Amino acid sequence: MSRIYNFSAGPATLPLAVLEQAQQEMTDWHGSGMSVMEMSHRGKEFISIAEKAEADLREVMNIPEHYKVLFLQGGASSQFAMVPLNLMGKARKADYFDTGAWSAKAIKEAARYGHVNIVASSKEQSYTTIPDRALWELNEDAAYVHFTPNETIGGLEFDTEPETGDVPLVADMSSSILSRPIDVDKYGIIYAGAQKNIGPAGLTIAIIREDLVGHAGPNTPAMMDYAIHDKAESMYNTPPTYGWYIAGLVFDWLLKNGGLTAMAEVNERKATALYDCVDNSGSFYSNPIDKPYRSWMNVPFIMADSSLDAAFLAGAAEAGLVQLKGHRSVGGMRASIYNAMPEEGVQALISYMQDFQQKNG
Amino acid sequence: MSRIYNFSAGPATLPLAVLEQAQQEMTDWHGSGMSVMEMSHRGKEFISIAEKAEADLREVMNIPEHYKVLFLQGGASSQFAMVPLNLMGKARKADYFDTGAWSAKAIKEAARYGHVNIVASSKEQSYTTIPDRALWELNEDAAYVHFTPNETIGGLEFDTEPETGDVPLVADMSSSILSRPIDVDKYGIIYAGAQKNIGPAGLTIAIIREDLVGHAGPNTPAMMDYAIHDKAESMYNTPPTYGWYIAGLVFDWLLKNGGLTAMAEVNERKATALYDCVDNSGSFYSNPIDKPYRSWMNVPFIMADSSLDAAFLAGAAEAGLVQLKGHRSVGGMRASIYNAMPEEGVQALISYMQDFQQKNG
Repeated sequence: MSRIYNFSAGPATLPLAVLEQAQQEMTDWHGSGMSVMEMSHRGKEFISIAEKAEADLREVMNIPEHYKVLFLQGGASSQFAMVPLNLMGKARKADYFDTGAWSAKAIKEAARYGHVNIVASSKEQSYTTIPDRALWELNEDAAYVHFTPNETIGGLEFDTEPETGDVPLVADMSSSILSRPIDVDKYGIIYAGAQKNIGPAGLTIAIIREDLVGHAGPNTPAMMDYAIHDKAESMYNTPPTYGWYIAGLVFDWLLKNGGLTAMAEVNERKATALYDCVDNSGSFYSNPIDKPYRSWMNVPFIMADSSLDAAFLAGAAEAGLVQLKGHRSVGGMRASIYNAMPEEGVQALISYMQDFQQKNG
Repeated sequence: MSRIYNFSAGPATLPLAVLEQAQQEMTDWHGSGMSVMEMSHRGKEFISIAEKAEADLREVMNIPEHYKVLFLQGGASSQFAMVPLNLMGKARKADYFDTGAWSAKAIKEAARYGHVNIVASSKEQSYTTIPDRALWELNEDAAYVHFTPNETIGGLEFDTEPETGDVPLVADMSSSILSRPIDVDKYGIIYAGAQKNIGPAGLTIAIIREDLVGHAGPNTPAMMDYAIHDKAESMYNTPPTYGWYIAGLVFDWLLKNGGLTAMAEVNERKATALYDCVDNSGSFYSNPIDKPYRSWMNVPFIMADSSLDAAFLAGAAEAGLVQLKGHRSVGGMRASIYNAMPEEGVQALISYMQDFQQKNG
């Protein structure tokens, strides 16, 4: 079979150009006689890969000098503990937005380490909206404010960052990082598992304003202390070198393809086209999210007649459109359309959806 | 350049057959139209990869049914915290052997969580020997006994496991796992970072006797609780899928190449030949380790005239023999000769060493 269109929420499709370069370099990177997988992380070859990846990410995201960029392990789930372990400090309280399944997981983990104040929750609305700003309860003495800019499962996305004044803003950007330009300066910490818009699972990126490094409590495991990773330039222990390398190829691909401004344009076009298809289906397909907060990256939709789900998925797979089944907590379908999903893939999905409706509507 | 012989201590050389298979499957695994890197960890394709890898590892190591096999992140350095967080229990004390740099790191981390009793230490002998068994101070009420079967930096290896009676034995087997058959039944927990004898950095394997799962203290981060990973079959969060896949290819390669009995034979031959070269050099080269405890995997050696080090390394690199520089804490050279280092590589190194001695001795 040739390449298919893979709408998985993560691990997710990667740019074919990146995979082909990795394939070509697999047994011999740049004449070194080694695979990147085999390189000592302290050797000059890997150091050059690591440094270029960081420099390119800084360029792509326009990350200011006074932010550290760490290449870590453990996914967002490890960050759910690391953020409170490093930032809760003596205040022992933090503000959290509750806007979906991933917010809820972050909240549950943070509650081990101190008091979690819920700034705002859309749980009663089944996480289909962002609560009205007028109702937010932000605390000036919170150690930080945590939010999830894009909820991968619900398909709900903040339109802009919350304004938190002097309280550091922390974002789990796993499923929206690199999807559009952001102003890093507005954030205290941005973290993201790599497996959606960056590269392979197992790599986690944390972008941390430097004054927020160095405040971990005494019982913090060494591997969960930002200061230890920062001091060692992400090599306190052996980092996930191959993931770091692939991420570097993705950053390079982004730079060669117009950076985040170009990504945002394409991503908006892809999302708009897909939501239009859903909205114009006369309720054959529907998406429950409040329109201003619909995710560009994860588009869940259900069919009015859910008995057609299996046929929809089987037909899609035959047409080379896979991983469209929705998360079990939401049901229906979900199309994740990260940077690496080409517009042709979204157009193919739309054609299939229209075709399926014509035959079954 | 063609492939070189890479003596890195980790990340380390991998079987060429494994890399070539990964290369061939990079953009389209088994006709799925996806790279393994792009697969949902919950999709049928990756589940089949994951299950086969675990089954093959169980076969290779002859792991009994009542042991769990977890595919984790974070390296041995995360296990340094996870072991005490999960096992120290109410006793809040554990026994540790101190036989090298990695033992010392494990001890330092464990001391955050309870009392560490040093069973025996060879620190005063610069970690060149395993202390006499008659002098070991094992405590019957210790929560567990921790040791490092093979010290990667010093090149020191236990000849057999310590006998610890009813106290669970915990081993950091990062640099010796899969190098020879062991009796898993003698261990409570075996853990290993993958980047030496298993696969790519970023994957960590833990083999845990089932009665030792489920005892983490209440403030243990979710990502550090064995029970949470066990219950979710290593998919509490997105696992390092590509590393898991490559590890599976390595396990398959081991099975096709005679398993651990065959590995042990070859590894003993490789180590013996290299130590013989050192010992028969009339002190031009030397290795400081007590002979019964010399590592099969990591062979450090120094030259009597250390001013020749740079010329040795430069000449070696020209001959396609790389990553031979010793750890900065030991100096001199170190040849790591894991399973994937072919005998021809060791023979090439020996020829080069003899040649170098002839020209400079």
